[in-house]
Amino acid sequence: MSILISKLNWRYATKRMTGEKVPDQKIESILEAIRLSASSAGLQPYTIYVISNAALKKEIYEKACHQLQVIESSHLLVFASKTNITDQYIREIVANTAGIRNIPVETLDGYFNMVKGYNDTLTHEQRANGAARQTYIALGTALIASAFEEVDASPMEGFNPLMVDEILGLKEKELQSVVLLALGYRNKEADLLTNAKKARKTRDQLYVEIK
Amino acid sequence: MSILISKLNWRYATKRMTGEKVPDQKIESILEAIRLSASSAGLQPYTIYVISNAALKKEIYEKACHQLQVIESSHLLVFASKTNITDQYIREIVANTAGIRNIPVETLDGYFNMVKGYNDTLTHEQRANGAARQTYIALGTALIASAFEEVDASPMEGFNPLMVDEILGLKEKELQSVVLLALGYRNKEADLLTNAKKARKTRDQLYVEIK
Repeated sequence: MSILISKLNWRYATKRMTGEKVPDQKIESILEAIRLSASSAGLQPYTIYVISNAALKKEIYEKACHQLQVIESSHLLVFASKTNITDQYIREIVANTAGIRNIPVETLDGYFNMVKGYNDTLTHEQRANGAARQTYIALGTALIASAFEEVDASPMEGFNPLMVDEILGLKEKELQSVVLLALGYRNKEADLLTNAKKARKTRDQLYVEIK
Repeated sequence: MSILISKLNWRYATKRMTGEKVPDQKIESILEAIRLSASSAGLQPYTIYVISNAALKKEIYEKACHQLQVIESSHLLVFASKTNITDQYIREIVANTAGIRNIPVETLDGYFNMVKGYNDTLTHEQRANGAARQTYIALGTALIASAFEEVDASPMEGFNPLMVDEILGLKEKELQSVVLLALGYRNKEADLLTNAKKARKTRDQLYVEIK
């Protein structure tokens, strides 16, 4: 069994955590993996809030997400995706790329025009939905990175996004919260699912092969 | 540097491939990782088409996605998400879970009622959008799994989804194609981006920390 498969088998959506702090080095490693996630056209259309502040976690727990792992976590990540993609944003991404590659920004005009041209065909809602989808690639990376660091993780969609947006002031930044991720350590006594067998579709249920 | 970080740095969206076949064992390892992906409430609301048939890849290339890696790939994965989540589907997932855990299905009534209750609050469109987002977690896993197998991968959103749906007959199965993934080997001579430095936001650009 490959190391990746064993990590995927180790992880599960941890519902109860111990409150123990995850060392900074492990958090940094997880954040670095998320930062390197694939992203369509390199846009990374999201901002991620990394919350270890106990009072803020408590506020989110009480007002927006009544799940104990929010307050029992070490760090709560809020994945907030862009509600709009503007020409200016695309221009900034292209300039960033040119800077990293140490090339004149004009050499990336074709890239800029391609991304802008596609973006121009989309409605405001399609842009927001597309950005939200991209955020889930980063979430997928985060879950795997946590497992490699032997840090437990609990992704949560069952929360009040408008309330989280209000608490963090996301709307005025043209962001919306799409998924939360609690990072911490599993409480084996309290979490009934710690030893539950992973339930997934079989290979034949999930795939259609055309050879 | 951790092994995961090094794999993330190795991979890039490969635009030109050699046409060389990826060994079955590597494909199986990638499919197994995708199968183990996290999925909200365990629903895995997608079917993945695994296409190695050259004629079918050519048809998709010509009619729906004029990107060379479609025909230069070894395998083309089509991630197709469910356009609806029905009570019957939730019931099947719960029954599958009970079977795997070898427990009476009635012991999971709470789980069924929670998922159904949430699903009942969603419009048809919200269910389809939610399923598409989940599919991107699987995509994120697929990209990492490919890198671990030293297989190159090219995710593609720039295609005609209605045409792919028609070619594969997805609509009548209540599925829609959301993203394609070409698997194969990079053609270093033809692919200008093989040696390009990875461009990502900096840590400070991507994260907001609240301590």
